[in-house]
Amino acid sequence: MKNLLIKNGTLVTAADLFVADIFVADGRVIWIGLLPPGGEEAANADITIDAAGKYVIPGGIDVHTHLDMPLGDICSVDDFETGTIAAACGGTTTIIDYAAQNRGESMAQGLETWLKKAEGKAVIDFGFHLTLSEFTARTLPDMEQMVALGVPSFKVFTAYPDRLMLDDASIFKVLKKAKDLGALVCAHAENGQVIDVFIREALAARQIEPKYHALTRPPAVEGEAVHRLITLAELADAPLYLVHVSCGDALKHIVNAQNRGLPVYAETCPQYLVLSAENYDQILFEGAKYVMSPPLRAKQHQECLWQGIRSHAITTIGTDHCPFNFNGQKSRGQDDFTKIPNGAPGIETRLSLLYTEGVGTGRISLNHFVDLVATSPARLFGLYPQKGTIAPGSDADLVIFDPTVETLISAVTHHSCADYSLYEGMRVKGMPETVIFRGNVIVQNGKFTGTAGEGQFLKRKPYASTR
Amino acid sequence: MKNLLIKNGTLVTAADLFVADIFVADGRVIWIGLLPPGGEEAANADITIDAAGKYVIPGGIDVHTHLDMPLGDICSVDDFETGTIAAACGGTTTIIDYAAQNRGESMAQGLETWLKKAEGKAVIDFGFHLTLSEFTARTLPDMEQMVALGVPSFKVFTAYPDRLMLDDASIFKVLKKAKDLGALVCAHAENGQVIDVFIREALAARQIEPKYHALTRPPAVEGEAVHRLITLAELADAPLYLVHVSCGDALKHIVNAQNRGLPVYAETCPQYLVLSAENYDQILFEGAKYVMSPPLRAKQHQECLWQGIRSHAITTIGTDHCPFNFNGQKSRGQDDFTKIPNGAPGIETRLSLLYTEGVGTGRISLNHFVDLVATSPARLFGLYPQKGTIAPGSDADLVIFDPTVETLISAVTHHSCADYSLYEGMRVKGMPETVIFRGNVIVQNGKFTGTAGEGQFLKRKPYASTR
Amino acid sequence: MKNLLIKNGTLVTAADLFVADIFVADGRVIWIGLLPPGGEEAANADITIDAAGKYVIPGGIDVHTHLDMPLGDICSVDDFETGTIAAACGGTTTIIDYAAQNRGESMAQGLETWLKKAEGKAVIDFGFHLTLSEFTARTLPDMEQMVALGVPSFKVFTAYPDRLMLDDASIFKVLKKAKDLGALVCAHAENGQVIDVFIREALAARQIEPKYHALTRPPAVEGEAVHRLITLAELADAPLYLVHVSCGDALKHIVNAQNRGLPVYAETCPQYLVLSAENYDQILFEGAKYVMSPPLRAKQHQECLWQGIRSHAITTIGTDHCPFNFNGQKSRGQDDFTKIPNGAPGIETRLSLLYTEGVGTGRISLNHFVDLVATSPARLFGLYPQKGTIAPGSDADLVIFDPTVETLISAVTHHSCADYSLYEGMRVKGMPETVIFRGNVIVQNGKFTGTAGEGQFLKRKPYASTR
Amino acid sequence: MKNLLIKNGTLVTAADLFVADIFVADGRVIWIGLLPPGGEEAANADITIDAAGKYVIPGGIDVHTHLDMPLGDICSVDDFETGTIAAACGGTTTIIDYAAQNRGESMAQGLETWLKKAEGKAVIDFGFHLTLSEFTARTLPDMEQMVALGVPSFKVFTAYPDRLMLDDASIFKVLKKAKDLGALVCAHAENGQVIDVFIREALAARQIEPKYHALTRPPAVEGEAVHRLITLAELADAPLYLVHVSCGDALKHIVNAQNRGLPVYAETCPQYLVLSAENYDQILFEGAKYVMSPPLRAKQHQECLWQGIRSHAITTIGTDHCPFNFNGQKSRGQDDFTKIPNGAPGIETRLSLLYTEGVGTGRISLNHFVDLVATSPARLFGLYPQKGTIAPGSDADLVIFDPTVETLISAVTHHSCADYSLYEGMRVKGMPETVIFRGNVIVQNGKFTGTAGEGQFLKRKPYASTR
Repeated sequence: MKNLLIKNGTLVTAADLFVADIFVADGRVIWIGLLPPGGEEAANADITIDAAGKYVIPGGIDVHTHLDMPLGDICSVDDFETGTIAAACGGTTTIIDYAAQNRGESMAQGLETWLKKAEGKAVIDFGFHLTLSEFTARTLPDMEQMVALGVPSFKVFTAYPDRLMLDDASIFKVLKKAKDLGALVCAHAENGQVIDVFIREALAARQIEPKYHALTRPPAVEGEAVHRLITLAELADAPLYLVHVSCGDALKHIVNAQNRGLPVYAETCPQYLVLSAENYDQILFEGAKYVMSPPLRAKQHQECLWQGIRSHAITTIGTDHCPFNFNGQKSRGQDDFTKIPNGAPGIETRLSLLYTEGVGTGRISLNHFVDLVATSPARLFGLYPQKGTIAPGSDADLVIFDPTVETLISAVTHHSCADYSLYEGMRVKGMPETVIFRGNVIVQNGKFTGTAGEGQFLKRKPYASTR
Repeated sequence: MKNLLIKNGTLVTAADLFVADIFVADGRVIWIGLLPPGGEEAANADITIDAAGKYVIPGGIDVHTHLDMPLGDICSVDDFETGTIAAACGGTTTIIDYAAQNRGESMAQGLETWLKKAEGKAVIDFGFHLTLSEFTARTLPDMEQMVALGVPSFKVFTAYPDRLMLDDASIFKVLKKAKDLGALVCAHAENGQVIDVFIREALAARQIEPKYHALTRPPAVEGEAVHRLITLAELADAPLYLVHVSCGDALKHIVNAQNRGLPVYAETCPQYLVLSAENYDQILFEGAKYVMSPPLRAKQHQECLWQGIRSHAITTIGTDHCPFNFNGQKSRGQDDFTKIPNGAPGIETRLSLLYTEGVGTGRISLNHFVDLVATSPARLFGLYPQKGTIAPGSDADLVIFDPTVETLISAVTHHSCADYSLYEGMRVKGMPETVIFRGNVIVQNGKFTGTAGEGQFLKRKPYASTR
Repeated sequence: MKNLLIKNGTLVTAADLFVADIFVADGRVIWIGLLPPGGEEAANADITIDAAGKYVIPGGIDVHTHLDMPLGDICSVDDFETGTIAAACGGTTTIIDYAAQNRGESMAQGLETWLKKAEGKAVIDFGFHLTLSEFTARTLPDMEQMVALGVPSFKVFTAYPDRLMLDDASIFKVLKKAKDLGALVCAHAENGQVIDVFIREALAARQIEPKYHALTRPPAVEGEAVHRLITLAELADAPLYLVHVSCGDALKHIVNAQNRGLPVYAETCPQYLVLSAENYDQILFEGAKYVMSPPLRAKQHQECLWQGIRSHAITTIGTDHCPFNFNGQKSRGQDDFTKIPNGAPGIETRLSLLYTEGVGTGRISLNHFVDLVATSPARLFGLYPQKGTIAPGSDADLVIFDPTVETLISAVTHHSCADYSLYEGMRVKGMPETVIFRGNVIVQNGKFTGTAGEGQFLKRKPYASTR
Repeated sequence: MKNLLIKNGTLVTAADLFVADIFVADGRVIWIGLLPPGGEEAANADITIDAAGKYVIPGGIDVHTHLDMPLGDICSVDDFETGTIAAACGGTTTIIDYAAQNRGESMAQGLETWLKKAEGKAVIDFGFHLTLSEFTARTLPDMEQMVALGVPSFKVFTAYPDRLMLDDASIFKVLKKAKDLGALVCAHAENGQVIDVFIREALAARQIEPKYHALTRPPAVEGEAVHRLITLAELADAPLYLVHVSCGDALKHIVNAQNRGLPVYAETCPQYLVLSAENYDQILFEGAKYVMSPPLRAKQHQECLWQGIRSHAITTIGTDHCPFNFNGQKSRGQDDFTKIPNGAPGIETRLSLLYTEGVGTGRISLNHFVDLVATSPARLFGLYPQKGTIAPGSDADLVIFDPTVETLISAVTHHSCADYSLYEGMRVKGMPETVIFRGNVIVQNGKFTGTAGEGQFLKRKPYASTR
């Protein structure tokens, strides 16, 4: 493995920003310093990269992905190879994907299935959360086993009755067990029962177009579920991580809980910051592209979320990357919006969108940007300091980010297999020019140069062990 | 029927307070005025009562009672005769009791059963709410029938899974139907599933004493359910009436909803204003007397509730009178608090407790007192102006209230069949000296002088028709 | 004085609504009842009015007027005759006007001046508040004298530095004294110092049009002063009455204070409910008509205020009637908005506007309407039960209100001397058809039939004596 | 100047925590890395310090000190030598002191005076804020000059009328000017006028003991001033830094402002976190030691402040070090609490108290600790990245902090000249063992080894230039 010297870059961490040289060996950062004139030779690096005028940031960590995810008889279109290549090209060097147990299966079986999906394919490191599809006598013991195997986070749903929804008693027991294990519960918060009543009414009234997906899941059903989950977590004395928070109705309860000192964390996704429910009004069946849960919201919620980011109520930015093709998959719902598979691609555009709309507009600082896309995810999910920062001893997962390059987002150029992009034609400024993963350059000028199977499974530490 | 003249009393309504004479004929108030000197003769009344120095207020309306209510193989100990006599002696001339359907039964059958319970027994007027014990295909049509029969309010539970709890989808459908019918949904708000987890943990740990009844139903489970119900009502565009609100955790959501303009109403009960969780610490099995749901709360919640009353967030004072004997009934739970029948007597002490602790302490005005115990209940539940005020044409249900008399509350002297009182030994100041029901004196100096069976079933108007 | 029988009207008070007959003698209500068929003769009234299909409500009480008020070298254009005639025609039978001391003068001198202004002119009853123009050694003793003379309310300003503004220390002392006296402090809440900075900047930038009146007094300066005054009142343990609340920024602090149980009261005026800052954008100098303080606000504040009314955060509706002519008076500010005299007419349109926009739209009930325009003002300012309700023994100040009549508001037809109306061309539904003052009909079908000088000075009871 | 190698320490910044070696030359950090076995020789350092098992953190920055500060005819007892030695011994390597203009003087004269006070004395670096004692025609131009001279922060008072208080108009102008200059306004928030009324009442009632200092400045007067200042800052579109926030009444407005996205910052001090108003009840005149403004508060405010720290509502920890001797200075107020000089020592105990009570109790993380005492102060006040972090190129101001050492706080051992300590006898765990200032060891095992006059005046960047 070759040594690497990154010179003159502006190093950015969650707290710091300064010009420095970085020396990498054996896949790890060895030192950060200021080489004296002529010091480069003394450093004796195999490869030297000049990062002058560019930012050197920790590789991004996307803690919300769904690669190779089955949904009924179809599957999300990116597997662990295409999905992680897209991630890498977007500046992400670690993902935490949602492994799921099938009903009747043990969690270990679910994990095993997902490990096989990733094997020989992932080009960057990966960890797993475990999604609970039911609550049975073996749920709590299984959780203990998962933590021991390096999977200390579990997802519960208050939505999708009959498929994923757990009742309050079960969620409460999961939270109590998570507390005991030091694990973290991730929750999808929407009141699935109320949504079902709305859906039945809509279908009965022949309201079948994609926009009814949004209209049958109003912000209040997310707000309600968030409030309920926070109450349950508080009663269980457990931390809580709310995935893909999409609206002010949810955020206000999160802010309130945090102001009271509760360990409640929130994730949002670029689509909720950048897109809005207006997309559902596109002609023909175009609106189907934006069918995801929670749905895109009215525009005013965007500012709520940005304010939540600014005030640190929102901790992380994930993507909920769950790509389905418009042709052949989304199109199943042509005559019934409930048949449109929920989900959309986004794994590649996370950093550039957040940089453009966050840093570029002055909404957040560069440090805050790094914190949202890398450091906080690493800390919350037990990967820090191996991942999520630039420090001697840490994995040399680094992104050389050029803040000046403008690019156009398009399905034509993106690396996902999805046949469309949520952001088609959108211009972003700021680009992960070079991506270094465990000391190897895997992306150069937007071209992927890495190797399938180089990504490793990360056994993560429990949440509580890092507090 | 004899004419009646009440002279020189200080007439108090929800808004007014003035000295006046009241003339009653044919069971109704005919006029309110100032007789000139010697005018009494002209009035030509059969009976004249001098109310100088006393308040004349509308007869109280208790909208939350459970008379002759079966619970498993036992029954609340007051039937419609003893229960309404106790009510009358306490200054209440109308009750609205909770009729219930048995599972499998139609609502009409439930109503029929309760009408029979009251027949020939009730000494004052009565209406019914209908308690839903399940949600089936006939629930919504049945609701329509009930409204037509003068029963335009329905109770749903988020507590007591497997017995009374409806899931969110069912409650939401009930709310939507109520909206269509102009009816009002009354809700018992506690998260029954979370409570069940707590209860199982408690029993597993051999925590069997009465105090664990309270510890397994913390305020947060009430707060959560209230927030959830408010969200459902808002989404259904329906009004909501929260019964027996017991704590600040619930009230804050109610205040917030009202501040946003939602038609959300709250009832509390004297026990939550006057007693506290400290009662569960009484020696031996005494704590069982206070086992009700929601349970008594820590003392600081009393001030929250009083503040909710003062700011009009709380609309009505009911009793949740549901008396079980300490000996023989409560005692079933000697070795397991979950076997203690939930409920306690209180129908007779509503006015005197609220007057003593509310008006006597300066917390509320006399007008507000009348509003809480009579006028607001009448308005909300479709009885106004027949009931709930003193006006020409209204039923002559009147209480001559002597604010100076002090009495001691005791099971020895109360009229309920219950073998104990929640307030044993408590001193109250202010007493319903004379109670007039439809123009007849039925209580005189605390002695009941009325007749069983004189009470009539009141067909009530729907909520929406009175806005 | 002739006896009067009002038959078949729908009597409305702050709490009640029922059909009844009302008998009036000697200027007072004698009885309210239901005459038997043929009973009219027995009543033997001199005059009988059939009010079938109409509301009979208590005469309105406008607690915020400025009649014959000097401002520099000009004067508001209505004196106590034209002003009270306009009031009467609008259904108002009592006003409380702001008497003011000149600097250097005692309060008694100020009161004396105002009593003379009213003498022989007022056609309805009147009381006075006393406006403090300075704080001196005799301020506190003078307050005591005023209370003894029946003037138990005092106005302080946080606006208008160098003319009316008191510093915080002085206001705090006034509040403490008011507490001792049981009196009520009325406050004009705007941060006058911040406004002055804005004004100087505006003039320096040659921003001279009427709209800069509003732009130099943004809602936040009202919000700030309201918060400050509430803090001072809380520290002084004194009640506080905030006059002409105009915006959500102010209201949120009031709601918060009331939710904490503080005796904080708020008044708003029809102009803030019905008009908006858009009026300042009218062509030419038309915007000057709307120059008042606080200024009209952006439209969203209207809904805030209506919500404040609905939730009872706002207690009373006054007019702040302070009419200046557009020609000759307002026009002084043609080249400098600071020279436009602040104030506008409104005394006549209070009931019809509030009825149309409040009751007519379903925002508030009829009872609430009566409470806002009559009962609450009477209670807060020590006139109840002589005024503000319909009860045996109360003054027979009654309005027969026809809810069906539509009229057009116009300066052509209004009774104020002002040469314009804020509401020119606006259509209202609901009209005070007949106005009875102390038992005499003074307005019939919109025609004034009363007599100058019949109005009496009302010695009011202190706030605290009525709690 | 000698090179320095710090080996094996656990480096802690505001975001990171990892074991690393640090190499220092020419007063600056050169590199941070992991020396290979035997690499120490290659590093060729003059001095090597083994920091194994200890934290290496950035030198502390205390942005609120009053050294050599005149108050009437006395002076705070620490000059820039004794004061900075005490600071250094406590782990602080930079202070920002409040230079003040005398009334009538220019700001430049004030700055000149303070520069002379520091000259030849300061053992660590220092910057200045400028305290406004009046608002005159030259205030705004003077501010511009100060920014140019590296003094881009200004202090205003809403307290101390007749001595320091500015009226709202002046403060508003200062905020607007600060906005233009990119400068930061620091505010002492208490309503001085209300306090004066309370003080006069107290003295009139012969309430002269130290505890009346606290009773005459209740939390609400701080809350009021904070709300007012935030409104002014919002209207001026300027950032605001609230010094020595002491209570929940103030904090709630800060939280609210931050939740709305306003650039409002808050500082608190160890005394408000650790001590309470109970100290005023000490026997004899002991309470005088705790006389400072704002005063110590009731205990529940401590938890409010900690919660404010945890949720990042509070940004920095300063000391407000302003030491007066108990004997001879505080004693002037023996018969009149208003004559007790306001202020107390604290410059030396900032880190150890915050570490003990914050990190030691689990309330905050080590990163957060570093952020509060060093990084946030450096960022806000224009010193970053020269100060406030550990990074190549930054000043080598470093503290080797031993988390295991327990010490006793006492005036006997502290380095301030003050004849008492607020924390006498309090035990703290965690101690700045070695303090390195610009690459020189100036404290070793608690012994000061530096040199007077080595501290340099820091010209600071304006707030806005660092966003």
